[in-house]
Amino acid sequence: MEPDDDDVPLILTWDDANSGLLSEDAERGDENGGGGHYDIVNNAVNSAPGPPNHRAQNVSLRQSWEMNYQEAAIYLQEGENNDKFFTHPRNPKALAAYLFAHNHLFYMMELLTGLLLMMLSLCEAPAVPSLRLDVYACVLLLQFVEAIVVLIRQTSHVRVTRALRPIFLVDCRYCGAVRRNLRQIFQSLPPFIDILLLLLFFMVIFAILGFCLFSPNTADPYFSTLENSLVSLFVLVTTANFPDVMMPAYSKNRWSCVFFIVYLSIELYFVMNLLLAVVFDTFNDVEKMKFKSLLLHKRSAIDHAFQLLVSRQRPMGVSLKQFDGLMRFYRPRMSARDRFLTYKALNTSGAPMLSLQDFYKFYEVTGLKWKPRRSGEHWFDDLPQTSFLIFKGINILVKSKAFQYVMYVVVAINGVWILVETYTLNSGFSWSRFVPWSYIVFLTIYGVEVLLKITGLGPMAYFSSGWNLFDFSVTVFAFLGLIALAFDMEPFYFIVVLRPFQLLRLFKIKQRYRNVLDTMFELFPRMASLGLTLIIFYYSFAIVGMEFFADVVYPNCCNTSTVADSYRQINVTYGNKTVLEEGYYYLNNFNNILSSFVTLFELTVVNNWYITMEGVTSMTTHWSRLYFMTFYIVTMVVMTIIVAFILDAFVFRMNYSRKNREPVENPEDENGIVFEVEVSRDEALTTLELYKQTCPGLSSLNSLQGVLQTMDRGGHSSMVYLGRRSRTKSDLSMKMYEEEIQHEWYTEYSREDLAEREQCPEQEPDSPVSLPSSFPEPQLNSQTGPHSVN
Amino acid sequence: MEPDDDDVPLILTWDDANSGLLSEDAERGDENGGGGHYDIVNNAVNSAPGPPNHRAQNVSLRQSWEMNYQEAAIYLQEGENNDKFFTHPRNPKALAAYLFAHNHLFYMMELLTGLLLMMLSLCEAPAVPSLRLDVYACVLLLQFVEAIVVLIRQTSHVRVTRALRPIFLVDCRYCGAVRRNLRQIFQSLPPFIDILLLLLFFMVIFAILGFCLFSPNTADPYFSTLENSLVSLFVLVTTANFPDVMMPAYSKNRWSCVFFIVYLSIELYFVMNLLLAVVFDTFNDVEKMKFKSLLLHKRSAIDHAFQLLVSRQRPMGVSLKQFDGLMRFYRPRMSARDRFLTYKALNTSGAPMLSLQDFYKFYEVTGLKWKPRRSGEHWFDDLPQTSFLIFKGINILVKSKAFQYVMYVVVAINGVWILVETYTLNSGFSWSRFVPWSYIVFLTIYGVEVLLKITGLGPMAYFSSGWNLFDFSVTVFAFLGLIALAFDMEPFYFIVVLRPFQLLRLFKIKQRYRNVLDTMFELFPRMASLGLTLIIFYYSFAIVGMEFFADVVYPNCCNTSTVADSYRQINVTYGNKTVLEEGYYYLNNFNNILSSFVTLFELTVVNNWYITMEGVTSMTTHWSRLYFMTFYIVTMVVMTIIVAFILDAFVFRMNYSRKNREPVENPEDENGIVFEVEVSRDEALTTLELYKQTCPGLSSLNSLQGVLQTMDRGGHSSMVYLGRRSRTKSDLSMKMYEEEIQHEWYTEYSREDLAEREQCPEQEPDSPVSLPSSFPEPQLNSQTGPHSVN
Repeated sequence: MEPDDDDVPLILTWDDANSGLLSEDAERGDENGGGGHYDIVNNAVNSAPGPPNHRAQNVSLRQSWEMNYQEAAIYLQEGENNDKFFTHPRNPKALAAYLFAHNHLFYMMELLTGLLLMMLSLCEAPAVPSLRLDVYACVLLLQFVEAIVVLIRQTSHVRVTRALRPIFLVDCRYCGAVRRNLRQIFQSLPPFIDILLLLLFFMVIFAILGFCLFSPNTADPYFSTLENSLVSLFVLVTTANFPDVMMPAYSKNRWSCVFFIVYLSIELYFVMNLLLAVVFDTFNDVEKMKFKSLLLHKRSAIDHAFQLLVSRQRPMGVSLKQFDGLMRFYRPRMSARDRFLTYKALNTSGAPMLSLQDFYKFYEVTGLKWKPRRSGEHWFDDLPQTSFLIFKGINILVKSKAFQYVMYVVVAINGVWILVETYTLNSGFSWSRFVPWSYIVFLTIYGVEVLLKITGLGPMAYFSSGWNLFDFSVTVFAFLGLIALAFDMEPFYFIVVLRPFQLLRLFKIKQRYRNVLDTMFELFPRMASLGLTLIIFYYSFAIVGMEFFADVVYPNCCNTSTVADSYRQINVTYGNKTVLEEGYYYLNNFNNILSSFVTLFELTVVNNWYITMEGVTSMTTHWSRLYFMTFYIVTMVVMTIIVAFILDAFVFRMNYSRKNREPVENPEDENGIVFEVEVSRDEALTTLELYKQTCPGLSSLNSLQGVLQTMDRGGHSSMVYLGRRSRTKSDLSMKMYEEEIQHEWYTEYSREDLAEREQCPEQEPDSPVSLPSSFPEPQLNSQTGPHSVN
Repeated sequence: MEPDDDDVPLILTWDDANSGLLSEDAERGDENGGGGHYDIVNNAVNSAPGPPNHRAQNVSLRQSWEMNYQEAAIYLQEGENNDKFFTHPRNPKALAAYLFAHNHLFYMMELLTGLLLMMLSLCEAPAVPSLRLDVYACVLLLQFVEAIVVLIRQTSHVRVTRALRPIFLVDCRYCGAVRRNLRQIFQSLPPFIDILLLLLFFMVIFAILGFCLFSPNTADPYFSTLENSLVSLFVLVTTANFPDVMMPAYSKNRWSCVFFIVYLSIELYFVMNLLLAVVFDTFNDVEKMKFKSLLLHKRSAIDHAFQLLVSRQRPMGVSLKQFDGLMRFYRPRMSARDRFLTYKALNTSGAPMLSLQDFYKFYEVTGLKWKPRRSGEHWFDDLPQTSFLIFKGINILVKSKAFQYVMYVVVAINGVWILVETYTLNSGFSWSRFVPWSYIVFLTIYGVEVLLKITGLGPMAYFSSGWNLFDFSVTVFAFLGLIALAFDMEPFYFIVVLRPFQLLRLFKIKQRYRNVLDTMFELFPRMASLGLTLIIFYYSFAIVGMEFFADVVYPNCCNTSTVADSYRQINVTYGNKTVLEEGYYYLNNFNNILSSFVTLFELTVVNNWYITMEGVTSMTTHWSRLYFMTFYIVTMVVMTIIVAFILDAFVFRMNYSRKNREPVENPEDENGIVFEVEVSRDEALTTLELYKQTCPGLSSLNSLQGVLQTMDRGGHSSMVYLGRRSRTKSDLSMKMYEEEIQHEWYTEYSREDLAEREQCPEQEPDSPVSLPSSFPEPQLNSQTGPHSVN
């Protein structure tokens, strides 16, 4: 119970530990060995306040340590989230505010408000029909909105400002990825604009040229005026009007095709690719710089935390006790066993404490999931003999190559079957005829396969593979489809037709596809955030579009424009049959937010976008074209970024796998990062004793006692634990830039750190609650921190 | 005249030097100090045969040296051209054949034959109207072709084999770049095909899905059968039918847009980008490997040549005399001065001979253009005082920032002027009104600028800049346009409208544009070869298209198809006016080779390509679609390669300039590679003496005497010469991969070399005319080559 003399922290975070927030803290819980378990994420105080006790020196010491743990945990959290240190709480009040604001509940509210604000557009003036609210709800909601709007924006009544609503959404905590994307887009803008100017320049020159060459031809509407000429060539860059724009000139003089071929070669095949190259290059560079700054920020956070955890007697290392104190704040839900295993994983030197070098690996180790390495690897090892043999047999069967290939053959046959079946249906397709016996046969086979695999491998092992999950869900969907058919639930019929996706399993055979699909999964979160970014742009443009173009197009609306046919809706009589001939383009409108989104997606795909543009233009003014052209350029930027991102991710991964072409020594290593830690019985016992001293809360110690029990039961003197986590892009980057990191970045970092320290050492002594960002540099091994206790 | 004892070559190329070809050679020309100057490129024997003379030992020695020089030159040539060493001539007869086949005349004939063969299609059966030949020429030509065809292809009469004609063209010497492109395309194919299968797989699944979902809708022609469904989705990947294909389903149920959005997101935005990523990655890898093998091949060539040039007494170095002998064969047109300067540039150690390390830089130095560094840098330095001052003034004016910016302003005003002028012409444009006074004013200004610059900088300096060349040619074109207008030469009117290109000069202001445009120029040769590759594919497809689809489409042809409108040509009466309404698509046909090319270009641009496809399909069979789809996929490969190439080149260059961001110490270094060599008077004299001994031909010595005269005239004891050449991609690559080259590639190379040497040393002694590829490795410094003289 008595803290040793060497337990005095090297740095005291807040000297006035007995005032304000801390004095309360000190009044309780020195019996349970150290203040509240502040979960700095969920802001929950875990430990019940104990009765007040005597105020001895060790109490204040323990308080100091607890404060240091918490502060170190906050630093590490900031390092992880890439929060700048200037938001770091510098006094107890700031700490309270910090804990309030960094809180899932708070984030949730923020997000919800943002979403609500955006979803308003579903039921505001040009509303989606089914969502039109009745007056009562409208008034209620409007009042709520009005209040918010008045509060934040001082009653602006130009409704177009609604287009700025996404700003609120983007600004909330959970949209960090979107914010990063936007930053990246803005960083890529200057070179992008440069090349865009080149593009526009050629466009103008060719517009003048085209006007001079083709305007004498009265049959050519595309170049009749300079404005037409410009618009035609703008649309031509998107290829949307291609052969048509050439045809009138081409029919008069065959050599006029040279003009168009040269123009397209320059603009479409050269400048547009240049655009991609420039964005790709900037993107690459920005990615690398971002990785670098994140890495160094984390390193700096670790430096700060380390300084808070070392004691005066041992300024070079963090002991298990201190580390455990840190982890109780940093990961309040982590079990005692895992905290200990994390410590062991960090401690590579075998010394009784963690050196700074060990501690630098903190972020690599902290996310691991720990599991004992089993001697017998099957889940059914403990079952009685007979069932063991059965399951063993299933296990061997399921793992055999033969079984796998049989399944591939079945899937392939199923694929061909579906194709042939659908092909013979050519006369027409109706749902009622679509439950053939083959459906049931194949579904049965898949069902049996899933069952065999689950029993043979055990549910845990089975569901840990993404491919198995995929198989499972497709099979379950097929089954649901069957039920839907059996019970005539018509709207779910579409599930039935999803079964060809089963065929995707065939791509498992080849390594390259596995790579591609794995990368796809790795990319998914980032892709989703890019998609979200795009949707935010869509939202803004949809609002503007609805404001100006709602209800301007309708059937037979644009009879004066060149695209009248696409909007025409007339009854045509062929012989004795009257048919409604529809040009469907009136459906591409801005009448409500959903239609606007679909219209904008069509504009993104670009093909025939000029029909929508010309239709709207003919019903409004020439200036409407600005909207469409701006939208095209904006989506071009975002799309180019998306392409650059996919390119970068794949090229990066392929380079990586080329670099590490040597066979992996640990086959499990392929899917993630694995750490191995061996724990001896003695170690476990000592640790348990230590933990009993520091935090006697029962629940968290169970896990460690469990370890000892398992050892006793199995009669082992030690046990090996495996810590696993999936590999992230950051791990790949670490390996790719290994040399640069070691030789350049870290040197640069320590040089800067030194410079910073030299700049402001005199600021420190007078402020009792100082920023630890200028703590003595670890490498310099200084024994006297600015806030040493004596 | 007496060769020293140490002049005995370490290796004798052909021991039977006194038999066959060599004995003839020996009979003449030992008075002029060594056999014929074989120009191995032009196959010209430069030296006149002298009278026969006494056969002394030194004669045979000299012959041996000459043979070695020539052989070394051939090795270096092979290294440069990346010819494999197994085509290396191994005996005198092979040498004769080698010299015959490696010859510009021969290459030319090869190229011409290939081109003629391809141009036949201009006047064969579906001929371009104006090029239709009369019967006589036809018979003559056909007989010629028939003969060739019979000779090479044993009279195949399926005319589609004409599509294979490009093979002959590609196979000829000058199309090396195209051949390399094709190889690269084929190397990128396997991963490309993998991803393509993924694309097609999703297409099939969605086709089944789409058929099931949308075929009950009778108003939807796109998914009525499985085949239609597949074709619609194939076209949808190219986006060519996008909103239209969705519209019938969308008008029935708004949620059906989800199907299309998901499909396009997967196929267009993911898999297609994946395709680009895979090709880009393979391309990068292949480029690097190609560079590596080229580099090592050159190194190996240098090793071989070095062994042939060292003598028994000095096996570690090449003396000036030997180097000069080599250069007389390698670059027969190089002057004696330049040969000497090249030697000096290589010789960095200052020793009297070139070490192997020096010699390794051979290819870097050999292409330099040498110029004395002038003390006074202006061309008018030697003029009398008055004119000197005038020119000096012009020079200062022309170089001043003010002058440059004034010109930028003039160009900008000109641009705005043209724009406004054209805009006010909106009523219609006619040539006769288009010689406004502004044209003449601006042209005069540009003309004066060009004159000032030429006089101020000197014509040499002026034309050495690409930008000046551009200015000059645009101005000259504008002037020609004026003449054309003045003399009513109507077909050249289009030159007049080229003058807005003058505006391109404005882009010189910004660094990024200069970089982009410089890179563009660097890329140009490679781009041209890629374009040629594309044209070769076009040619093959055009032939096949003409064979099957000539004259199948015509106005009003496809009335039964869904695209009938695009082919319709009818008179429509609006009120009292009758207008010819044309769907121009009948012009996109395969009636002759030129039309086919234009049609194929339209298919490459992809937009509305399905109209051409459906038109042709409706007049032939469903199988025609295969042609169009295959073409789409083939152009997709080539286009992806082009995109990958542009991406690669730009990203590479930008990385390079990022890597070398430190200011260039030599400002001239920005535009190319510069070597500096200082020549003292004594050195020049000694060299002149040496040259007089070895090759007393007057013309080649003039240059060296010129050096001495200049020194005497100026009274300098030494002169500095600058060797310049433009920077190539290879130079950039050298710098980028510097570390890898030094640490990995060269080690690998010498290891392989060693292994090779160990494999076949016993093969050597019995074959008198052996392949020098297994000569003693230079590093090992062995004194006894397999063919030493004693």
